[in-house]
Amino acid sequence: MHRLTLSLSVFLKSDNNALLAQDYFSAMHIINVQLGTRSYPIYIGDGLLSSADTYAQHIVGKQIMVVTNATIADLYLESLTQTLSDFEVHAKVIGDGEKYKNIEVLNTIFDALLKVPCDRHVTMIALGGGVVGDITGFAAACYQRGVALLQVPTTLLAQVDSSVGGKTAINHKLGKNMIGAFYQPRAVVADTGTLRTLPEREFKAGLAEVIKYGLLGDTDFFQWLESNMDKLARRDHHSLIFAVERSCLNKSRIVAADEREQGRRALLNLGHTFGHAIETATNYDSWLHGEAIGVGMLMAADLSLRLGHISADDFRRIMELIKRAGLPSTPPEKMSPEKFLSYMSVDKKVKQGSIRLVLLRAIGDAYLSDDYPPLILQETLQHFSAA
Amino acid sequence: MHRLTLSLSVFLKSDNNALLAQDYFSAMHIINVQLGTRSYPIYIGDGLLSSADTYAQHIVGKQIMVVTNATIADLYLESLTQTLSDFEVHAKVIGDGEKYKNIEVLNTIFDALLKVPCDRHVTMIALGGGVVGDITGFAAACYQRGVALLQVPTTLLAQVDSSVGGKTAINHKLGKNMIGAFYQPRAVVADTGTLRTLPEREFKAGLAEVIKYGLLGDTDFFQWLESNMDKLARRDHHSLIFAVERSCLNKSRIVAADEREQGRRALLNLGHTFGHAIETATNYDSWLHGEAIGVGMLMAADLSLRLGHISADDFRRIMELIKRAGLPSTPPEKMSPEKFLSYMSVDKKVKQGSIRLVLLRAIGDAYLSDDYPPLILQETLQHFSAA
Repeated sequence: MHRLTLSLSVFLKSDNNALLAQDYFSAMHIINVQLGTRSYPIYIGDGLLSSADTYAQHIVGKQIMVVTNATIADLYLESLTQTLSDFEVHAKVIGDGEKYKNIEVLNTIFDALLKVPCDRHVTMIALGGGVVGDITGFAAACYQRGVALLQVPTTLLAQVDSSVGGKTAINHKLGKNMIGAFYQPRAVVADTGTLRTLPEREFKAGLAEVIKYGLLGDTDFFQWLESNMDKLARRDHHSLIFAVERSCLNKSRIVAADEREQGRRALLNLGHTFGHAIETATNYDSWLHGEAIGVGMLMAADLSLRLGHISADDFRRIMELIKRAGLPSTPPEKMSPEKFLSYMSVDKKVKQGSIRLVLLRAIGDAYLSDDYPPLILQETLQHFSAA
Repeated sequence: MHRLTLSLSVFLKSDNNALLAQDYFSAMHIINVQLGTRSYPIYIGDGLLSSADTYAQHIVGKQIMVVTNATIADLYLESLTQTLSDFEVHAKVIGDGEKYKNIEVLNTIFDALLKVPCDRHVTMIALGGGVVGDITGFAAACYQRGVALLQVPTTLLAQVDSSVGGKTAINHKLGKNMIGAFYQPRAVVADTGTLRTLPEREFKAGLAEVIKYGLLGDTDFFQWLESNMDKLARRDHHSLIFAVERSCLNKSRIVAADEREQGRRALLNLGHTFGHAIETATNYDSWLHGEAIGVGMLMAADLSLRLGHISADDFRRIMELIKRAGLPSTPPEKMSPEKFLSYMSVDKKVKQGSIRLVLLRAIGDAYLSDDYPPLILQETLQHFSAA
């Protein structure tokens, strides 16, 4: 861990040192999520989908159930199955999209497991983006009261965020991620090569979560993103590996400090309360999660500016970075302050009545608050509704 | 804990000491389940349903969602709601019976929680028998990734077994308890007064699990049961409190040693692999769980006798006790050795192909085995099919 942090921070400060970059990118990168008996590695590298050894050491028993969606199955299921040829591999393909993250689809995963039948020594593999990771993780948490799980994220959002940290869930018609479990995988295998096939809009949405790590607790990384956003946005491979690794390092430290979100982990919700309101208001079908989070982070920054925490220049830098990532900077037109408030207050991050938000003391320094003046929140909502 | 164990064992050896018995029964009994940060008390006593303080110290937040079934709601929901009058109490009533322990009913519990809406500080209370405890426990494990749970068991089976230890689950059409979680309650409140309203057949079925504790690891308790079964079977209140407490003490020790059933906890499945085969073959609608477990224990004892571990006299004592509890001693007529084997091998206690069983070295000394001669198992199955 120490060596890695060192090499990362050296790289951060000298990204035109070609030799160092060479060394840095020739190896597979490993970050350990430190959770006692539930600790696990995140492997990051190009081509890991075909690295049989990487998987084999984390698979228990002989049976494997890969869950993926139709789009990803076409691209990668065959090659993953070949990589796992020493095992008895079964696959369950679900629909592609947030609307399939529900209890009915969850039950079809149980059907698939029981039809084999898979015993309690099966290893489940989530091959895909956030939806596949969330529903497969929850299925693994519940099947026979918990079976082994590997997360194999194939989208930027899943590689830097949802595959790490053990939050699993499905949606309920009355709320997003309302049913779920904290359930850690045995390993996360992030093949950055899969990001090449990611549709442009989805890739950009993933960048929102990358920016989030800089904003909430890693000023150096925020500055690196300011210097490298153009390369990153065109998927320069070295920049991509670095951004994924640095994001996972940030996430893993926060999760290690607060696995069950009793405190610090809630900082990862920067932009999410505003963002969820946008997603709910648009029925989760026209805005991607990352797009909503991008606007949400801007709104949190705006509120922080109005509270006198960050400067107008800080706000401009944040706005700039989000725009350069190709993300929207204003909510959909239909959003009014009333609409925001009504959807924000059913969000599960609300603690006993007051809306708890993640705000910024500075770029790289987020905090949780529910005692800001309500009028200032109104101003932010007004500002972003009129925009 | 030490004091309790002492008083229990003194009582065990001198149950005609009236003064001692008086002392013993005048207090509420508390057993602590030792699970580190997840430790919790089991309260046992007559009339606890109306003891507001007992509940209040384990309730987080203001909101309570009681889940119960139609039968228990008629008997006890109003009085429990009165006991909890300091809180905002909501109730969800589900159907009475194993067939309601499924994913559709689970989802109606989530509907009820979200319609209120209950936030993540809600406390869920499972008021009822094993089915209510299992499905409510699982709902609490999943709602918003886990909310507070109190188990308030109202059947003998739930008081001595299913409410303690954190196993929660629902059934799938392809298998019993296939979907679930290990999720510990904040407390178990066992009001032995509720056992007075329990139908005779259900009460007897609960006695099977009581006998199980003696058989698998507590010779003294087995002997106490031999001396007191007639009083117990007619629900003598002192005998009942003692039997519930001693059972919970046995269960809590095993759970503390092996929360997630990596080893020793599997001993609690004594009789269950045979029993589940009977339950599955009869579609869970004509045999009660405890009835099937009673026969299952006899079959395990028969196999242990054939293996030369226990004596013919031991077997006779076990048979005798099960009969005196009013439990059946032979499987339903439709069971053939083939039927047993086919239902036993899909049971989730099967480890990688071989049927793992809990067998007896002696009365009060159970062990796990999957390397007995298959022919001896055949003899047992044959014997109980011809019977």
